[in-house]
Amino acid sequence: MSPASTPVIDPVELTRDLIRKPSVTPADEGAMDVLERALISLGFHCRRMKFENIENLYARRGTAAPNLCFAGHTDVVPTGSPDAWSAAPFEAEVRDGILYGRGAVDMKGGIAAWVAAVSRVLAQGDVPGSLSFLITGDEEGPALHGTKKVVEALMAEGEVIDACIVGEPSSQHALGDTIKIGRRGSLNTWITVHGRQGHVAYPDRAANPVPVLARLAARLADHRLDDGYEAFQPSNLELTTLDVGNPATNLIPAEARGRLNIRFNPSHTGESLMAWLNAEAGRAQAASGLRIELEHLHSGDAFLTEIGPFVLGVQDAVEAVTGRRPEASTTGGTSDARFIRAMCPVLELGLVGQTMHQIDERAPTAEIEQLAEVYRKVIETFFARV
Amino acid sequence: MSPASTPVIDPVELTRDLIRKPSVTPADEGAMDVLERALISLGFHCRRMKFENIENLYARRGTAAPNLCFAGHTDVVPTGSPDAWSAAPFEAEVRDGILYGRGAVDMKGGIAAWVAAVSRVLAQGDVPGSLSFLITGDEEGPALHGTKKVVEALMAEGEVIDACIVGEPSSQHALGDTIKIGRRGSLNTWITVHGRQGHVAYPDRAANPVPVLARLAARLADHRLDDGYEAFQPSNLELTTLDVGNPATNLIPAEARGRLNIRFNPSHTGESLMAWLNAEAGRAQAASGLRIELEHLHSGDAFLTEIGPFVLGVQDAVEAVTGRRPEASTTGGTSDARFIRAMCPVLELGLVGQTMHQIDERAPTAEIEQLAEVYRKVIETFFARV
Repeated sequence: MSPASTPVIDPVELTRDLIRKPSVTPADEGAMDVLERALISLGFHCRRMKFENIENLYARRGTAAPNLCFAGHTDVVPTGSPDAWSAAPFEAEVRDGILYGRGAVDMKGGIAAWVAAVSRVLAQGDVPGSLSFLITGDEEGPALHGTKKVVEALMAEGEVIDACIVGEPSSQHALGDTIKIGRRGSLNTWITVHGRQGHVAYPDRAANPVPVLARLAARLADHRLDDGYEAFQPSNLELTTLDVGNPATNLIPAEARGRLNIRFNPSHTGESLMAWLNAEAGRAQAASGLRIELEHLHSGDAFLTEIGPFVLGVQDAVEAVTGRRPEASTTGGTSDARFIRAMCPVLELGLVGQTMHQIDERAPTAEIEQLAEVYRKVIETFFARV
Repeated sequence: MSPASTPVIDPVELTRDLIRKPSVTPADEGAMDVLERALISLGFHCRRMKFENIENLYARRGTAAPNLCFAGHTDVVPTGSPDAWSAAPFEAEVRDGILYGRGAVDMKGGIAAWVAAVSRVLAQGDVPGSLSFLITGDEEGPALHGTKKVVEALMAEGEVIDACIVGEPSSQHALGDTIKIGRRGSLNTWITVHGRQGHVAYPDRAANPVPVLARLAARLADHRLDDGYEAFQPSNLELTTLDVGNPATNLIPAEARGRLNIRFNPSHTGESLMAWLNAEAGRAQAASGLRIELEHLHSGDAFLTEIGPFVLGVQDAVEAVTGRRPEASTTGGTSDARFIRAMCPVLELGLVGQTMHQIDERAPTAEIEQLAEVYRKVIETFFARV
């Protein structure tokens, strides 16, 4: 396909077209079609990969190595009460240079900016390799039938991706001030203490599971996992719920349940933390005589993309366009980068995230425009080093 | 009214008549009518005292002092699944000398035994004083419109009761082995810890109330209130529930709630315990920086009816009929005795309580018969000492 035959795409208009499709997880509502039409116009070969009720798209232009991938998601979180918004959340209104709408920042704006960047690059000529998109409709939801499944399928076919940029809103205060080069791991653990129900006036005929849970929960919350290190924050445990649900004031309940989440740096693995929790529960069980069950859900170990040519190239590109050299950070929640790291080095670079998931999610149109330029420079820098 | 004119009442038949009225709190279903008819036949002046939807009865025979009162309740707890019973719970079946039915033990059998005892006493002649009944239909429920209200109304009128026997099933293993001469007090406290909601990956932007609640709950549960003393068990604190109700694994919740119950002997008062809990909550608030609210519901201080002529007379009477001298105990849950103590010395004496509140609640007919004899002796002993 010759340079002259591909259109140049406006990142703000494409963002608006995407926002107008109310693709609240797991709904798609045509968002993937909007993206696919734009990619076909740029010469991409598009493959829909549907898992259960989830739309996913893998699109590639070219067959040569290296393959630079952009990953993201078209699904968005719910709006909350639309009445609380100052602009209808799916109408993509631009007011005083600001684009309002659910997904403006997280991350339809990021997708559109990369598509626009690709169109600008292609207007200058083909790249010495391939460009690809890995887009899911299940990032904000359970994330079971999205990027995880697509990555598994691509790896099974032998598809190679050499590096990947995830378009999550990584910037803190100004575009490009931060890229994310790693994430902490995450472990959820459910605790159940089994006691024996009885009347509060006859405690010797019952076995109260509630103080056993309270003591164990307090002990776990008070344990310092590590102090962090240069590339990573300290690991952190949060008790997220305690649930007994006993309505009767005169009853010792039969069972007490709690749940915790640990976000951990590479000082730990899911396995090492589960072993620690199991040992603590075992001690509490021995001390109390009550049976304690733990159930773990380990949704990803910590990872770090080492500072090397790929990361340095992205930092150079961002600095060239914005004048800011981005900090390489590992803070924050999990993202689909945790799945993609199985295939290639991955980092996250996108808009300023301050209004993500909030009422009146919004992005300045100039920032979306500038992100397209940043992305263009990232692509050019990547292929310049091939 | 001459001795010859009062009927002699069969305690087992009256128990069965009462059981056949399915008076599950707050329903009456005619149970109070059955009792009232029997009392009218014995020459009692009956006053219905209805508070809200609750039937209560105060009946008195005679106007002279002293006035010996019998207190109890016609309401019963629910049956649970009737299919789990070996006899229909409201049919009062007698099988192999055992009477089955909800309320057989707690405490329609006790009421019928006292009515029978009175009929036997009156068959010998009038007593040198008055006999009375204070019966409620709200003992097993919230107990807000029952004995508490009747006692307040009687005291407001200047009615005098000199001593009171409550017919609760006080016996442990054999009829008359135990009387209750006091009860521990009861305090319920609701704890609310107010934090700040946020994402688990950004704990510094949130303030988690759950570990604050867990630490405070564990600390309170581990505090030894006292060691008890001769007349009383140790005071005891039970955590009865912890409720956060956070369904989201990635969310630090805004609020955490818990509840505890303290059963306490006269080493403490409701006031002293509330002051202690408030101080502990204040310390936890200062340490955590999170606001902690306590709400107390103090439903009765501990009380003790001193061992004196009344208690000794009852012990003598029980021993004379059963051959067992009852232990004077203060164990177990609260009862309406906590309200009556405001008027006069009060103690509890009744059937063996082992099947109370259970499937297949039951009493041997011979035990009901013997309780009527015990009660007859109690009445005679009381008036013999006037």
